[in-house]
Amino acid sequence: MTDISKLGEFGLIHRLTDGIKIKNSSTLKGVGDDCAVMHYPDKEVLMTTDMLMEGVHFDLTYIDLQHLGYKAAMVNISDIFAMGGTPRQMTVSLAISKRFSVEDMEMFYSGLQMACDKWNIDIVGGDTTSSYTGMAISITCIGEADKEDIIYRNGAKDTDLICVSGDLGAAYMGLQLLEREKHVYYQQVEEAKKKNDKNALKMLTDFQPDFAGREYLLQRQLKPEARGDVIENLRKMNIKPTAMMDVSDGLSSELMHICEQSGCGCRVYEKNIPIDYQTAVMAEEMNMNVTTCALNGGEDYELLFTVPIGDLDKVRQLDDVKLIGNITKKEYGLQLVARDGNEFELKAQGWNPLA
Amino acid sequence: MTDISKLGEFGLIHRLTDGIKIKNSSTLKGVGDDCAVMHYPDKEVLMTTDMLMEGVHFDLTYIDLQHLGYKAAMVNISDIFAMGGTPRQMTVSLAISKRFSVEDMEMFYSGLQMACDKWNIDIVGGDTTSSYTGMAISITCIGEADKEDIIYRNGAKDTDLICVSGDLGAAYMGLQLLEREKHVYYQQVEEAKKKNDKNALKMLTDFQPDFAGREYLLQRQLKPEARGDVIENLRKMNIKPTAMMDVSDGLSSELMHICEQSGCGCRVYEKNIPIDYQTAVMAEEMNMNVTTCALNGGEDYELLFTVPIGDLDKVRQLDDVKLIGNITKKEYGLQLVARDGNEFELKAQGWNPLA
Repeated sequence: MTDISKLGEFGLIHRLTDGIKIKNSSTLKGVGDDCAVMHYPDKEVLMTTDMLMEGVHFDLTYIDLQHLGYKAAMVNISDIFAMGGTPRQMTVSLAISKRFSVEDMEMFYSGLQMACDKWNIDIVGGDTTSSYTGMAISITCIGEADKEDIIYRNGAKDTDLICVSGDLGAAYMGLQLLEREKHVYYQQVEEAKKKNDKNALKMLTDFQPDFAGREYLLQRQLKPEARGDVIENLRKMNIKPTAMMDVSDGLSSELMHICEQSGCGCRVYEKNIPIDYQTAVMAEEMNMNVTTCALNGGEDYELLFTVPIGDLDKVRQLDDVKLIGNITKKEYGLQLVARDGNEFELKAQGWNPLA
Repeated sequence: MTDISKLGEFGLIHRLTDGIKIKNSSTLKGVGDDCAVMHYPDKEVLMTTDMLMEGVHFDLTYIDLQHLGYKAAMVNISDIFAMGGTPRQMTVSLAISKRFSVEDMEMFYSGLQMACDKWNIDIVGGDTTSSYTGMAISITCIGEADKEDIIYRNGAKDTDLICVSGDLGAAYMGLQLLEREKHVYYQQVEEAKKKNDKNALKMLTDFQPDFAGREYLLQRQLKPEARGDVIENLRKMNIKPTAMMDVSDGLSSELMHICEQSGCGCRVYEKNIPIDYQTAVMAEEMNMNVTTCALNGGEDYELLFTVPIGDLDKVRQLDDVKLIGNITKKEYGLQLVARDGNEFELKAQGWNPLA
């Protein structure tokens, strides 16, 4: 393992970014000057940024640095798709403590690069510095779109259909699973320590968490995918959503944003909310309400969008997209129609990092 | 004081960004959607990002949140000027611990806004989240420039003149001063505690650090200014630098970057390096070599640039800009000509956050 202080900031940046090849004609200058330089003569420029803090957004006891790099990139890419855009450039800022080696950082960058390669994005700059405490990651992503293709949150109209891609709640259940296995591990370590059982402690270094049959949940938590494929399909089918955003804080929270900004209400049917089999089984096992998990879990990075009711037939043909309800007049509020027909007011209990 | 958890993430963002008025025609959509939207049909787009970590880049025992916001914005604005551009948009990501109140964040934002107002910049987005440990700030700034006006680091040529704006080393001496007074304070507290002198401890809550006659040093450390005025003057005088960057890590380090990227050497004259009187006095008092402070101190945020020798007369008329040397052929290396005429090889001992 190579000590980062041996390379210094510029040496490390050089090592991490040396192999980067510029792929987009809009990128004129990448890493290596005071600024990156881009050119967007015929497009609108989209910009999004996200900050991930160790202990708050990720726990290095269960996510490795390569997956972390991949996920950090994907959550930003997802925001560009959520506006109907195409991601093009990215800057990456990292603050790291002394416990990381050059090889660790290479793993992080390989994850980043994998996500960027998937969507043809150039890493054009960033900042690499130290942290006395936890790791901090800040990524900014730039994308492009034709003016008429940009989808804001404020265009939903009464009678519009509400659609969501993929399924919901799995990333959240994946997190519960990881937390549970971590807890089991530490409990066993504690017990072995209490009994001063050195043999048991030794064996615990080979502790294998029980993830059999739950691979999908882990994948959703550790390796989320931005749904650029859905954007491509919408374009192919000539469907222009009236409002769109990605599901990062939870379906309830995102519905609230769209309804608030569009000045409307909504009616969502519990039975239509897409939930994977593994999510349902895991929720049952943990004695949790699976609909609550799907509504408020977050980190799904699926696309939530509304389309005019006239697009019903086209939307039905969309791959991996479900109709979950419809937009209503504002005075009807946000309603969830339960399986038994009862109606409840939807409350956004989405993840609040400041609570 | 208002607890941040009362407002939650969206409430806090609303409170901090509600008063923002968009000032630039290139900003189509600011805060409030998945992305900001911008339009740059006739310009090149510049992008820079910086991350500031508590304990590494700033110490809240001696910088208040308003100054911190101002400084965090200015160091990014400085990078846009360093390419010859005009700053236009900014995103601001913040991770904060529970010890901060809503009013604290408003102070931080008022500092940010002051810097942005000074240079007519729109705050168009960001991310606000929590930190279990220290505060983390990540800012990304977008600027614009005509293609022919962009100044890279790689255009310096043999015989070019090397210029620097303002003076160097003052921000570093300001930091030394703040560190010294902090040390004095804690020493007195320790002594009072040892003696169990409650009266002395009480009086120490009114501890007044001794900054008389050192105001300039403090200002340079706590309230740096990006030199957009120098860029404006260069344009007015029709001077196009061949290479430019801002002095953030120290003059030596930046000279090294320009020479490396331009494939040249340089000769810099110690006697020409601009140093303020207060910087010199403070260095003397602290038994430090003032030239070393000016070469390696960093955080000056002055502009370092090279111009063709034919521009000598024009450069001499520039306000607050000094000629400090000239570019040479690569084989001559980076040389510092001392006051006594001896020559030394310049070594970049600039601040290394990863050392």
